[in-house]
Amino acid sequence: MEKIVDIGFETIHLGHGSGGELTRNLLDKIIFKTFSNPFLDQKHDGSIVEFNEKIAISTDSFVITPIFFKGGDIGSLAVHGTVNDVAMCGAIPKYLSLAFIIEEGLKVSDFIKIVQSIKKAADESGVLIITGDTKVVERGKGDKIFINTTGFGEMHSKANISIQNILENDVIIVNSFIAQHGMAIMSDREGLEFETTIKSDSTNLNYLVKDLLDEFGNNIKMFRDPTRGGLGTVLHEIANDISKGVFIKETDIPIEKQVAAACEMLGLDPLYVANEGVFLTIVSKEIASEVLQLMRNHSKGKNAAIIGFVTNNHPKKVVMESSIGGKRIVSPLVGEQLPRIC
Amino acid sequence: MEKIVDIGFETIHLGHGSGGELTRNLLDKIIFKTFSNPFLDQKHDGSIVEFNEKIAISTDSFVITPIFFKGGDIGSLAVHGTVNDVAMCGAIPKYLSLAFIIEEGLKVSDFIKIVQSIKKAADESGVLIITGDTKVVERGKGDKIFINTTGFGEMHSKANISIQNILENDVIIVNSFIAQHGMAIMSDREGLEFETTIKSDSTNLNYLVKDLLDEFGNNIKMFRDPTRGGLGTVLHEIANDISKGVFIKETDIPIEKQVAAACEMLGLDPLYVANEGVFLTIVSKEIASEVLQLMRNHSKGKNAAIIGFVTNNHPKKVVMESSIGGKRIVSPLVGEQLPRIC
Repeated sequence: MEKIVDIGFETIHLGHGSGGELTRNLLDKIIFKTFSNPFLDQKHDGSIVEFNEKIAISTDSFVITPIFFKGGDIGSLAVHGTVNDVAMCGAIPKYLSLAFIIEEGLKVSDFIKIVQSIKKAADESGVLIITGDTKVVERGKGDKIFINTTGFGEMHSKANISIQNILENDVIIVNSFIAQHGMAIMSDREGLEFETTIKSDSTNLNYLVKDLLDEFGNNIKMFRDPTRGGLGTVLHEIANDISKGVFIKETDIPIEKQVAAACEMLGLDPLYVANEGVFLTIVSKEIASEVLQLMRNHSKGKNAAIIGFVTNNHPKKVVMESSIGGKRIVSPLVGEQLPRIC
Repeated sequence: MEKIVDIGFETIHLGHGSGGELTRNLLDKIIFKTFSNPFLDQKHDGSIVEFNEKIAISTDSFVITPIFFKGGDIGSLAVHGTVNDVAMCGAIPKYLSLAFIIEEGLKVSDFIKIVQSIKKAADESGVLIITGDTKVVERGKGDKIFINTTGFGEMHSKANISIQNILENDVIIVNSFIAQHGMAIMSDREGLEFETTIKSDSTNLNYLVKDLLDEFGNNIKMFRDPTRGGLGTVLHEIANDISKGVFIKETDIPIEKQVAAACEMLGLDPLYVANEGVFLTIVSKEIASEVLQLMRNHSKGKNAAIIGFVTNNHPKKVVMESSIGGKRIVSPLVGEQLPRIC
């Protein structure tokens, strides 16, 4: 796959989605060759797998534009996004299905780049692609490429994640800087030149999640990754789901200076900007500093921070103390801040 | 769901894919309300399930146009297609994930119709929708709605489907009339008026497959559904995979008269026209008539027929004896006969 693969076409044609010879050629030369493993090699309509534990399943379609961006592309994103959703359930991701909807005219070289990026991200995340599908739609009926991945993971034997366990004074920790993914896409899309380069934070979070579960087991009460809608929307959802309040301090939320500056320049609230390498966890006050320490010692949690706590005051509301000491209610995102961010 | 659900909009907006309040509203009022079950009701990023047996997994994206057609719609098709792919592995389908990519401007009433159709087809097929995703793309960047379903089924305890088991003289049986789905779509799409109405054969095949496995167990050597690419392409793939020849008789292939006439009129070879309610099975000669009998007694196999056999002559080739006695090689479909047929 290092060299350009010759499938006899420079762009994808409708025939590549026909189910006939062209489809078989595309699959054999690119997909099966790249992802070869005993499951996929069956080349059947489906794949047969075995699990020892309960399984977490999650699905996501990726429609991001542009398809290549600083810090990743739609391929790596489609792996990280679903791997992380499975991990957020308290599971160890093992397998992914992979389905493409390609717009006629996509450059074959771009398709190969995306497939290679999927392979790399899957290898790094420790998951196998076990079954897939490829469809092609006419020019103007899609947008280059959409990808669906569905992920399967074995539940971590110590995991007992449940919002029922969340109590007053429990502590909310995030692992990393927020708003990077959304601002990277924004700058790529709009051709904005910020002083420094903002890169998407798209990455896999499953190893850090596993380490946390290995160490703290059922003392971890929740994992959640604030992707679309951002941290603000997810905190609001949590407050709603647990019928308790959430209190956060603006100055405690980790954000890179250049990202904060870019948000300010564009009039965007970083609380609603999408993330792809961020998750939050809720744990009891007693173990919070230990959890924080473990996260900071991990490559995916170096900038972890305690951002707030759960309270019985203002149930179902998120209240944020601002940098100048004022308090405001954080509402959920209404409408669309940045369409097609993932 | 019988009455029109009011989500405050007549068409889908980009904000419905934001992950914010509009998304939540759409999900709560339409998706969660329709599919409510203990798995989905967790409203988490994923769902946790348990299986007793090995699992078969299959994924498919559906991009059919038009989205409503005689005999079904993109919603029922997205259920049947994946349920059948899981069944073809020798498994009992249990769960589906469900992911929408909606083009901005889709009528909410059409979306609701599709969701209801998914619900009905899922109920009839005995599967639960356990997790999902909804994305919205701008007008002109999609085509009304694309759906991905990924299906999970428990392997039937008696199933031992493997092409390794296929021997010379094994018999090939199909369950029903071919070419109906493709010709139904064709007539809808082109506004063709055939003398009588051709309906898509889109339906679930999992119950008939289960009955066959209950009765004949590991004597069933293969199931395969010839969807895209049609019967001809699938037979060619099988011949290739088993490195043996396949011999079929044109007059033995079940096809409705009006479908055959429509194909002739449009110059289409029914062997390459898509099916959605057809599967073929390969069994030893000794049990072929029993298998045929069981199929004919089942609502999904009334028109079952033995269409040919496996031979050591002409390995990797499919040879068909035509209605007038001549013989021709059936090549796989090259290019695209009917784009976006599923």
